Amino acid sequence: MDPTDGEQACFEAGVKFGTLYHQFAGTPISPESAESLARAIEEAIENQPFCADVTVEMHHDRLREALAEGPGDSEYVELTGRFMDVRIVVERDGVRVRTRMTMQDGYPLMEVVDVANL
Amino acid sequence: MDPTDGEQACFEAGVKFGTLYHQFAGTPISPESAESLARAIEEAIENQPFCADVTVEMHHDRLREALAEGPGDSEYVELTGRFMDVRIVVERDGVRVRTRMTMQDGYPLMEVVDVANL
Amino acid sequence: MDPTDGEQACFEAGVKFGTLYHQFAGTPISPESAESLARAIEEAIENQPFCADVTVEMHHDRLREALAEGPGDSEYVELTGRFMDVRIVVERDGVRVRTRMTMQDGYPLMEVVDVANL
Amino acid sequence: MDPTDGEQACFEAGVKFGTLYHQFAGTPISPESAESLARAIEEAIENQPFCADVTVEMHHDRLREALAEGPGDSEYVELTGRFMDVRIVVERDGVRVRTRMTMQDGYPLMEVVDVANL
Repeated sequence: MDPTDGEQACFEAGVKFGTLYHQFAGTPISPESAESLARAIEEAIENQPFCADVTVEMHHDRLREALAEGPGDSEYVELTGRFMDVRIVVERDGVRVRTRMTMQDGYPLMEVVDVANL
Repeated sequence: MDPTDGEQACFEAGVKFGTLYHQFAGTPISPESAESLARAIEEAIENQPFCADVTVEMHHDRLREALAEGPGDSEYVELTGRFMDVRIVVERDGVRVRTRMTMQDGYPLMEVVDVANL
Repeated sequence: MDPTDGEQACFEAGVKFGTLYHQFAGTPISPESAESLARAIEEAIENQPFCADVTVEMHHDRLREALAEGPGDSEYVELTGRFMDVRIVVERDGVRVRTRMTMQDGYPLMEVVDVANL
Repeated sequence: MDPTDGEQACFEAGVKFGTLYHQFAGTPISPESAESLARAIEEAIENQPFCADVTVEMHHDRLREALAEGPGDSEYVELTGRFMDVRIVVERDGVRVRTRMTMQDGYPLMEVVDVANL
């Protein structure tokens, strides 16, 4: 069967999450550079079709922890899902989908929060 | 509202597409290396949850064209959607979603082909 | 033979360039989001060891041209070397290396500008 | 001063390492898919100018360890330097540079092994 409007919107939301994660994971990041990266990620993904809003929240405490775990001269780590929570809102054909990525059991979990008709 | 099983499956399919594209776009590729990359992409994405099948078909003719357009000593180009068609099948909670990426009007278009109950 | 200090510094400079290009190429970019991405790239790469300075200059004119070439509803393109000039300065063991990436014959060329003892 | 032939060759070698790492880090990998990815990485990077040889050796034992550390249903991890040793040989203008990436103190270290006139 053809996809419903809700299914189409959820597909688009998934594309944005995969894009965001695999474009930016691995970027060198420190507490000092975390916020400029967060803003750039938000603005980059918001360029994509149907993307109404992107929010990236960096966990500065986890960044500092990770740096403290490394060798003495470490000044950065590579970005992974451990260091950011992400929320993406997609709107397409009268449907709004809210999605998020947070850590669960030590792994970043991407999920649909809810689907609503506008 | 909570997402339906179909919406969940479409979200997962979208994540795979965004992952595939933004992980591998930019990889140096030539007619000689195209097939090893296609196989590696298929096997890498099939590792992800709910991913039943991934097929990457490289367009060797477009690769040769792009090399001919470049300066005389070009032996590779960067991978973009122009050079590959992709099909991904996701199965989750009794729903199968078939998706594809092909060129349309000069741009790679990712879309849901159909959604079926298993 | 073991590498000289100049060779070590040039190796480090090359690593930064490869990192910068292949981490960020493919990012969705528009005239509106170009500057936040430029700043994030600069700060991310400056995190890396021996990296004294990174400057990313976006070509807004080429971004607008590329959008005009696309289908009518295009609001972004994928970042490639066509859209940015980059300068990276590396300092290691008393040697300063200046490097740059600019377009040449339609392709982004990364090169060492000069090597100096500090 | 203008770079020497050895410095130019070392810069090229660095570019290859940065490219390799930041293009492929983050790829979903399992013991089953590790070898196809290793071959694809080798062939992709060998496309680049002056790149005489690339060898990627996957650490299957560390992959299995990492999977065992994860939640029960984990079937893959994201590729990082922990899971592969890499050797790259660059030849340019009569100079051969051998480089490698191995784990040192828990971090992937990229380094020049030696520089030789051909």
